[in-house]
Amino acid sequence: MAHYTLASRESKSDDTLIRLGELTLGGCEKLFIAGPCAVESRRQMLDTARLVKRGGAQILRGGAFKPRTSPYDFQGLAEKGLEYMAEAREATGLRIISEVMAPDAVPLVAQYVDILQIGARNMQNFALLKAAGRSNRPVLLKRGLSATIEEWLQASEYILSEGNQQVIFCERGIRTFESYTRNTLDLSAVSAIKALSHLPVIVDPSHGTGRREMVSPMSLAALASGADGLMLEVHPNPAEALCDGPQSLPPAEYLALMHQLRAMNAFLAKLPERAKAVGE
Amino acid sequence: MAHYTLASRESKSDDTLIRLGELTLGGCEKLFIAGPCAVESRRQMLDTARLVKRGGAQILRGGAFKPRTSPYDFQGLAEKGLEYMAEAREATGLRIISEVMAPDAVPLVAQYVDILQIGARNMQNFALLKAAGRSNRPVLLKRGLSATIEEWLQASEYILSEGNQQVIFCERGIRTFESYTRNTLDLSAVSAIKALSHLPVIVDPSHGTGRREMVSPMSLAALASGADGLMLEVHPNPAEALCDGPQSLPPAEYLALMHQLRAMNAFLAKLPERAKAVGE
Amino acid sequence: MAHYTLASRESKSDDTLIRLGELTLGGCEKLFIAGPCAVESRRQMLDTARLVKRGGAQILRGGAFKPRTSPYDFQGLAEKGLEYMAEAREATGLRIISEVMAPDAVPLVAQYVDILQIGARNMQNFALLKAAGRSNRPVLLKRGLSATIEEWLQASEYILSEGNQQVIFCERGIRTFESYTRNTLDLSAVSAIKALSHLPVIVDPSHGTGRREMVSPMSLAALASGADGLMLEVHPNPAEALCDGPQSLPPAEYLALMHQLRAMNAFLAKLPERAKAVGE
Amino acid sequence: MAHYTLASRESKSDDTLIRLGELTLGGCEKLFIAGPCAVESRRQMLDTARLVKRGGAQILRGGAFKPRTSPYDFQGLAEKGLEYMAEAREATGLRIISEVMAPDAVPLVAQYVDILQIGARNMQNFALLKAAGRSNRPVLLKRGLSATIEEWLQASEYILSEGNQQVIFCERGIRTFESYTRNTLDLSAVSAIKALSHLPVIVDPSHGTGRREMVSPMSLAALASGADGLMLEVHPNPAEALCDGPQSLPPAEYLALMHQLRAMNAFLAKLPERAKAVGE
Repeated sequence: MAHYTLASRESKSDDTLIRLGELTLGGCEKLFIAGPCAVESRRQMLDTARLVKRGGAQILRGGAFKPRTSPYDFQGLAEKGLEYMAEAREATGLRIISEVMAPDAVPLVAQYVDILQIGARNMQNFALLKAAGRSNRPVLLKRGLSATIEEWLQASEYILSEGNQQVIFCERGIRTFESYTRNTLDLSAVSAIKALSHLPVIVDPSHGTGRREMVSPMSLAALASGADGLMLEVHPNPAEALCDGPQSLPPAEYLALMHQLRAMNAFLAKLPERAKAVGE
Repeated sequence: MAHYTLASRESKSDDTLIRLGELTLGGCEKLFIAGPCAVESRRQMLDTARLVKRGGAQILRGGAFKPRTSPYDFQGLAEKGLEYMAEAREATGLRIISEVMAPDAVPLVAQYVDILQIGARNMQNFALLKAAGRSNRPVLLKRGLSATIEEWLQASEYILSEGNQQVIFCERGIRTFESYTRNTLDLSAVSAIKALSHLPVIVDPSHGTGRREMVSPMSLAALASGADGLMLEVHPNPAEALCDGPQSLPPAEYLALMHQLRAMNAFLAKLPERAKAVGE
Repeated sequence: MAHYTLASRESKSDDTLIRLGELTLGGCEKLFIAGPCAVESRRQMLDTARLVKRGGAQILRGGAFKPRTSPYDFQGLAEKGLEYMAEAREATGLRIISEVMAPDAVPLVAQYVDILQIGARNMQNFALLKAAGRSNRPVLLKRGLSATIEEWLQASEYILSEGNQQVIFCERGIRTFESYTRNTLDLSAVSAIKALSHLPVIVDPSHGTGRREMVSPMSLAALASGADGLMLEVHPNPAEALCDGPQSLPPAEYLALMHQLRAMNAFLAKLPERAKAVGE
Repeated sequence: MAHYTLASRESKSDDTLIRLGELTLGGCEKLFIAGPCAVESRRQMLDTARLVKRGGAQILRGGAFKPRTSPYDFQGLAEKGLEYMAEAREATGLRIISEVMAPDAVPLVAQYVDILQIGARNMQNFALLKAAGRSNRPVLLKRGLSATIEEWLQASEYILSEGNQQVIFCERGIRTFESYTRNTLDLSAVSAIKALSHLPVIVDPSHGTGRREMVSPMSLAALASGADGLMLEVHPNPAEALCDGPQSLPPAEYLALMHQLRAMNAFLAKLPERAKAVGE
């Protein structure tokens, strides 16, 4: 007995697309989200936004409120960071996404961003899920570090049952015994979500591997596995990033990868019987 | 480099004891917490409280706000549940503990309970940890399903750095590949916490195993491993429990176990060189 | 300090190719291995071999000695199974691979097969690894259920240090908490092996997921991640398979998938800067 | 449906005891096994044997054939190591146990030792299990690094079904995400085996934790959880041990621990309703 209903394919057979103003993403139009781990400065965000735009992604990411394992690490620029992101949106026409960490911060963050992000550590923060469900913004729901596919689907139900039907799943690696990678990226989760749910699912290979050199091959693999998009960490100068430098792409690599990803997407769109192989 | 300071043995070498009015727990005076998974009714709480008292535990547990994987499962009686618990405290003299799930609910829950509980799924809900750190109640911090010892200690730092020094760690099993048990109870975490921190650590063998028949042996083992106490699920009639029935002890088993645990505690107190073997 | 030397990129920078008579596999010429979990009968092997050949794979798999969790399950046809495979090779020109489970069986199995397979459960059966290292057959070394990348590389060293340089790694999923899939297929292991070693690495999405409907998307993803080939379970009639029916492809799906995989391979060969993105 | 029969409680309700000449171990008479990771020299074994004897253990352990992750690490003294162990048995009256790693080595090792040990990496080396099943020695079967309880029981069936009824299970920690300890010692496995099987189960806290300071608390906890014995790594001078020094007890700690363990055993034997609490 599955304990999710609104998220299930049985409740809605056709794929849900994500609407951002005049944009409609999902399906053939993949979601490409890129940007730094943390908003660090006005200049960094403007530079990164122009780079992200040039590469062809539609959405700019950046953390204003950072969930850090230690209270003594950099916690983010808070609302000032959101202001910088909004300015970058004005300058480039990109949409923006940022993480919200507490229920009572949802209205503030929703006022700035186009998509609300809920992080892996908060996947079962039920009060936060409900608050996001009452906002009128699409919600990107990252998979918890040790969440099963079923628990992840059930977590989405907390958002959906509040009336918000725009949920995007994001596979970002699970915690296993392997320490060579930061997490173990589970691309079979993409197939699982596509089979069980009508909601889109994207992949974050930056957190999923924690290693820059793996981002390109895992991005290509994610699209090949049927993912509806990608979330990439990009930084104008990874060596100076305040967090996640080792997994952030520098500009040239980001641009080269986006070029490959568009080619892959075009290839997959023409692949015979593709839909059948993935969807059944 | 350890990323926790206030929780560390280096910052404070002698064990922190937990003060609940005239009671002082930890050290030789173990903390015994018992009660149902969820507060279900006034009668259930009063009956359970008398049973818990009779067995010798000092603290009554009961969930008023329940974190449930699915939004369609029983979510708890909310404030009404806290009222029943307070009434049970009046009737028995027990102290009470209950879970708080959202930062803005901390003042309400703190008004009723003697100890605030933060559940495994919220171990890295940093806004909640900070709010609990600003309350004047001891906080029981359960280990996250896939939290390392170091992440758990760092999470406590969010509470401690707000000025609240009364944190109790609670090992409740980690998520592994094994499915015979609900979780894998990691008693080596007790040794680890005792070595690395001055804060008390207790064990929840009910959630840790998910199997009633394992609660007794794992409780005895937990004390033998050096735990400062236990948290047990007890129900007047487990077959009718609204949640966690299969891991709840019925009255007779609870009373027999508490009898054994007192004997074990007395034995361990006299064990030669005990402190040295555990503490170094 | 890495504890492997012969397997490392530092000891040999150019990719090792696998030689099977006049065939040379690896690099652009991907290894496609297909066939049933177990050799069941002469007819089944001949039928499957013709199907495998038609789809374009070069190597026929089939288990003659089966490692089964329970001694009461079907253990394989032993040498009779190897005879059927050899006959299928005669009839089709395919090469054959089969698992060897004990050191003293290596000479017998090596007499029949073109490639020796060492299963996940035996990845650290050091006596078996050494015996395989003394044979003159290429060895396919599956990753252990809970083996780290480093342990896997070190296991290969037991084969290599006996003088056999033809080792093929095979990622087949690791054991995690997730139970929706039989194992968690770790495609980042492909990137890791390509970066750390000169030896080829292929992927087994059949065991890696345990679900037939995931074999196609995970096969495409494996090639996109940089894998040197695939190992697929195919059965003329999966519903009647003596083992692993739920993860075996029926004929039509196998043929359609091979068609897609050839297209993917051709696409990847032309992808700009591919080598750079994966290899550095 | 359980896939084990000879190991199950249903096939035999009373506990199996282990017979070593005139000794009968299991039940009230716990099995205490102690000694170094590896046999290093004649002198080391004689010194250790006298220490082990003085502490009260009945069985001396020592590795003559060592399963090492890397082929370049010390592989053991082979038969010469077994000779030293046999000499230590002569000198002290202790019984001896050593690991066997290959099916064809079983007769040789069985000629020297009183108990054959099968290591965690070989738990599903089915050819080895069968060969051990055909010897006339009790077999200690360590749990695989990622073996479920059910797979472990099924592995024992390979030994039992060959006619050897003297199998001892040994919990030695499972592989999880936690890296503070070498493995995660799963004491709930003791309860599980006692409930599901009539065969004895002991605990190895040295490998289970990989940390010397945890051996004492985890040994006490293991007995409290119902274990039939313990396997301890002891070395006359851990700082000079060729392997596993960090988890080996020095002489004084070993003697103090054995003193505590005898006290714990006497306490548990008198604990009211103990059998009922554990066994049902």
